[in-house]
Amino acid sequence: MPVSSFTDEDRRVVYRAIRTRRDVRSHFLETPIPDEVLARLLYAAHHAPSVGLMQPWEFIIIRDRTVRNEIFANFQRSNIEAAQRYSNDRRSLYDTLKLQAILDAPINLCITCNQTVDRGAGLGRQSMPETAVYSTVCAVQNLWLAARTEGIGVGWVSILDPAELAPTLKLPENVIPIAYLCVGYVSEFADRPDLEVKGWEQPAPIADLIHFDTYGKVDKPQAMHLLRSLTDDRIVGSDA
Amino acid sequence: MPVSSFTDEDRRVVYRAIRTRRDVRSHFLETPIPDEVLARLLYAAHHAPSVGLMQPWEFIIIRDRTVRNEIFANFQRSNIEAAQRYSNDRRSLYDTLKLQAILDAPINLCITCNQTVDRGAGLGRQSMPETAVYSTVCAVQNLWLAARTEGIGVGWVSILDPAELAPTLKLPENVIPIAYLCVGYVSEFADRPDLEVKGWEQPAPIADLIHFDTYGKVDKPQAMHLLRSLTDDRIVGSDA
Repeated sequence: MPVSSFTDEDRRVVYRAIRTRRDVRSHFLETPIPDEVLARLLYAAHHAPSVGLMQPWEFIIIRDRTVRNEIFANFQRSNIEAAQRYSNDRRSLYDTLKLQAILDAPINLCITCNQTVDRGAGLGRQSMPETAVYSTVCAVQNLWLAARTEGIGVGWVSILDPAELAPTLKLPENVIPIAYLCVGYVSEFADRPDLEVKGWEQPAPIADLIHFDTYGKVDKPQAMHLLRSLTDDRIVGSDA
Repeated sequence: MPVSSFTDEDRRVVYRAIRTRRDVRSHFLETPIPDEVLARLLYAAHHAPSVGLMQPWEFIIIRDRTVRNEIFANFQRSNIEAAQRYSNDRRSLYDTLKLQAILDAPINLCITCNQTVDRGAGLGRQSMPETAVYSTVCAVQNLWLAARTEGIGVGWVSILDPAELAPTLKLPENVIPIAYLCVGYVSEFADRPDLEVKGWEQPAPIADLIHFDTYGKVDKPQAMHLLRSLTDDRIVGSDA
């Protein structure tokens, strides 16, 4: 018999966390995050899966203004470069986007990956060494979902030059920064992703992304049939 | 005022999914996964964050035995090579580990990353192009947590040669396999990770992985203080 200790109501809660999680760059409040709440977020991250149980993640909790100013300057330089890729309307739109909250959020959190940690004795890492990094990303997503339930916004800043980030955060060579996060209570969570609302991009229909048995075997009618219940699924919620 | 539409009880549910999620290689049942449940899992994955809203993930749902036999052979070859790294007791222990369920699980699911998808117009990918891959891993973790609440086990197989996986799954050059997952209802979820139970590895204490402001600023007393509530936290649950 299949086991599950989760009820339909429980499932609704988890899908709601998944559905309403946002990449947050605005509406951060100065409200400090109590130790017990930050501890729970770290607990969530630390309970991610990891290849060989290597747990390659580490957490740098950044409150210091000098460090954050340096990282903000890194963002500014990287963003000027990134913006040059766009022209005309795209460029104007790009310039209106808020892409970080380094100085606004009460806490910055850098989640790193120690690629040479002994833990796990290399299990599962020989044919796919990149799984160390993947494990760390799983930790990020755990933290992100936990944060959503705590009313805490998380924004992942990727417009940063990692080569500059390393000396700022004093990272040794074997430790790479995976996610630079702005973290704090927020006054609201947007209904839809900012980039969708602003018209930067529209989400893809799931049916377009499903293949059967091998890649390229896209069978839209079969995919639509598989997904037919989503339009009225009482468990994932109303906007499916 | 901070907002949160989640109650303490809701938070408990989400932390419970995080705490009890397992990398599953045993106890798979033949019970088919109904379309509506598989649809919800894909929905969860598709609601992951992605840089620039690029949604680079795609899903190959693999039921075909020929494809799975080929991947199982890939695993066997890769595993013989991987096992050679170990000797003596470590090797004996390694040989007792079940590291895949390619043929046992009713469904295999390969989550891929299309690194050249136009969606997102490159936003956030210039200084950190690897964020496309990271977004895909976030999708994997969303699916994994949703599966746990559905009573569905997920096992991530990383002992596979990606160079051989690509032709088996007919992946074009710009699409890389991120996670090869065995997915199905299970008769039980282990209390602790298999690798811990078998004595392969012990989990690290979270306090050892926390740095303040910069890397290397490990302050164990301060970290222990930050985490002090976890031993008796009513929200993350009893085993914290």
